[in-house]
Amino acid sequence: MKKNIPETRKYRLEMNDKILNSGFRDFNKFFALDNKAYIDGALPVKMKELMGLVGSMVLRCNDCIFYHIDRSISEGATKEELHEAFNIALIIGGSIVIPHLRYAFEVMEEIYAEKTDKVAQGESRLKLD
Amino acid sequence: MKKNIPETRKYRLEMNDKILNSGFRDFNKFFALDNKAYIDGALPVKMKELMGLVGSMVLRCNDCIFYHIDRSISEGATKEELHEAFNIALIIGGSIVIPHLRYAFEVMEEIYAEKTDKVAQGESRLKLD
Amino acid sequence: MKKNIPETRKYRLEMNDKILNSGFRDFNKFFALDNKAYIDGALPVKMKELMGLVGSMVLRCNDCIFYHIDRSISEGATKEELHEAFNIALIIGGSIVIPHLRYAFEVMEEIYAEKTDKVAQGESRLKLD
Amino acid sequence: MKKNIPETRKYRLEMNDKILNSGFRDFNKFFALDNKAYIDGALPVKMKELMGLVGSMVLRCNDCIFYHIDRSISEGATKEELHEAFNIALIIGGSIVIPHLRYAFEVMEEIYAEKTDKVAQGESRLKLD
Amino acid sequence: MKKNIPETRKYRLEMNDKILNSGFRDFNKFFALDNKAYIDGALPVKMKELMGLVGSMVLRCNDCIFYHIDRSISEGATKEELHEAFNIALIIGGSIVIPHLRYAFEVMEEIYAEKTDKVAQGESRLKLD
Amino acid sequence: MKKNIPETRKYRLEMNDKILNSGFRDFNKFFALDNKAYIDGALPVKMKELMGLVGSMVLRCNDCIFYHIDRSISEGATKEELHEAFNIALIIGGSIVIPHLRYAFEVMEEIYAEKTDKVAQGESRLKLD
Repeated sequence: MKKNIPETRKYRLEMNDKILNSGFRDFNKFFALDNKAYIDGALPVKMKELMGLVGSMVLRCNDCIFYHIDRSISEGATKEELHEAFNIALIIGGSIVIPHLRYAFEVMEEIYAEKTDKVAQGESRLKLD
Repeated sequence: MKKNIPETRKYRLEMNDKILNSGFRDFNKFFALDNKAYIDGALPVKMKELMGLVGSMVLRCNDCIFYHIDRSISEGATKEELHEAFNIALIIGGSIVIPHLRYAFEVMEEIYAEKTDKVAQGESRLKLD
Repeated sequence: MKKNIPETRKYRLEMNDKILNSGFRDFNKFFALDNKAYIDGALPVKMKELMGLVGSMVLRCNDCIFYHIDRSISEGATKEELHEAFNIALIIGGSIVIPHLRYAFEVMEEIYAEKTDKVAQGESRLKLD
Repeated sequence: MKKNIPETRKYRLEMNDKILNSGFRDFNKFFALDNKAYIDGALPVKMKELMGLVGSMVLRCNDCIFYHIDRSISEGATKEELHEAFNIALIIGGSIVIPHLRYAFEVMEEIYAEKTDKVAQGESRLKLD
Repeated sequence: MKKNIPETRKYRLEMNDKILNSGFRDFNKFFALDNKAYIDGALPVKMKELMGLVGSMVLRCNDCIFYHIDRSISEGATKEELHEAFNIALIIGGSIVIPHLRYAFEVMEEIYAEKTDKVAQGESRLKLD
Repeated sequence: MKKNIPETRKYRLEMNDKILNSGFRDFNKFFALDNKAYIDGALPVKMKELMGLVGSMVLRCNDCIFYHIDRSISEGATKEELHEAFNIALIIGGSIVIPHLRYAFEVMEEIYAEKTDKVAQGESRLKLD
């Protein structure tokens, strides 16, 4: 991976800030609509994030894949659920998706590891108290 | 719409038959994997069909949109759920998706109408008995 | 061409109405942003419509090509200007754009013809008065 | 199929004529380069046409698929060779290619049938002489 | 950004040289047609470069985005004009364009900064004289 | 190039291993079908790899371009054959393919150089014996 997880998140936030503070207000409106598309509704958030993930994989956009895996895991997506979503994208999009499947596996593993670390750190902190 | 719903389903089946009877067996293997991607698993069938729908809309494939709307509705997807899935695809894929959103609305309405007709026919048949 | 110019415009309007009256309000917001992207600003409308045309041709969306040619001509685009925009799209997008270049030529000719007819009708009406 | 084989060839030729006679000479230069890409060279014509076919299928362009199947068969491509090229495109491009695989099968069958008819007509003519 | 502005320009030139000196002359012909598509004609150069930019953004090609921003700014494009072109691309192409919008902002800022530096250096040089 | 040739091959193998050992068996089935699409059949392996290359270039996937150039050269593809395949992809896909043509030239040169090194090393080793 070119950047690690925290760097990728940081770059994303910094650049989005520049776009949203550019003074061209329709960027803000589009970003607001984009966020709103994934909120809880008739379909639950986790499913919407997985739909966003499939859309991102078939369109082969690594930054988008990163974002939707990150969000899906925050919403409780399991490895099995991610595998099934990856597979739908692979079948729809074909072997051209494979480089992005490799990236998705990297991201998924790193984010689960990060989560485990946090839990472990949280636990040891609890013990210290 | 160029073809109506029953014609679209019929053409699809006929041509798939030709492909699957061509003697080139790897087509059959791919089609089997394709079907298997949407069966019940860690994620429920309806959600998988809606993921397939989002993938199909952002890749702008009307035949695929037709198929996944047809299947989603069979699996119980409501109009609100379809609207939310359409919207995710529209936001991801942009205005270039709009012609396919028009098609999706056409297909959705026709399939719900067809379903209502069947229920109505079923009911009147019941009354006749 | 599958549909003629007035039919294409009619279908577009009717289906957009259904989408905008579906009750899912974020479709309306997206359509509003879409319209707003092409209004007069730092760049003149005609140039924005031609940019929309290039975007539509390289993404190979006939409905979008139709719309932006129709709008460009309303904004005064000449045949030479359209040719140059078509050519930019052809060079960027390659031979895969050629079927859409054929469609663009058809649409362009029909819309110019329609305009000439209206002018001719206008003139004969003037003479009758 | 929307148009039959002779109609598709005719429409293509007529519209190309309009483009090549538009007076915008760089269209002619691009079309010349396009034709030249498929002439005999280090790679034989038939293989180049099959490469063009794979490129057309993964980019999901039916008009281009039609053209390269037509040309491949003229260059002696067999059904088995076409099946293998179709399969490469299906695997690279995924299930989104399937609607175009259905179209490719239709075109392939019609062109082989047309060829058989011509041979049959040629034979019966020979017998008449 | 992976490479800075001067490195990106340098890599581009070096590799283009290799392609244009490969002995395969049709590459040279295509590159010549590509350059010619953006020269002054019925449409002014700056507008053509902005059309090229929209085409590059919706097709999500960072190298092409870099090139057309660089050229647009050389032709006098203002920040407001670039914002409007970016927005057309964002609306046409959807959220999948956002990572390329981030890149476009980075490139735009760096090129304007570089220009300001040159002007500043030019001014201080003038003062020294 | 971000990674050199041996690093690119290594990363690819490592990540594929993770995917194939994830326990989700349909990934393995897809990868098997993918490999099988390029084996010797009615069409020779080298031609199939060049078809895969054209498909990869028009879909603008550098990892796939790398792989099919590597495989094509292993199967005996000459520089002239690669140039002709590159050109077909450039003409089909247009100027948007140029950044990937630059990458293809880099990869091609490095792999031929690597091959020459191996031959040279083999020869010097022979002389030493």
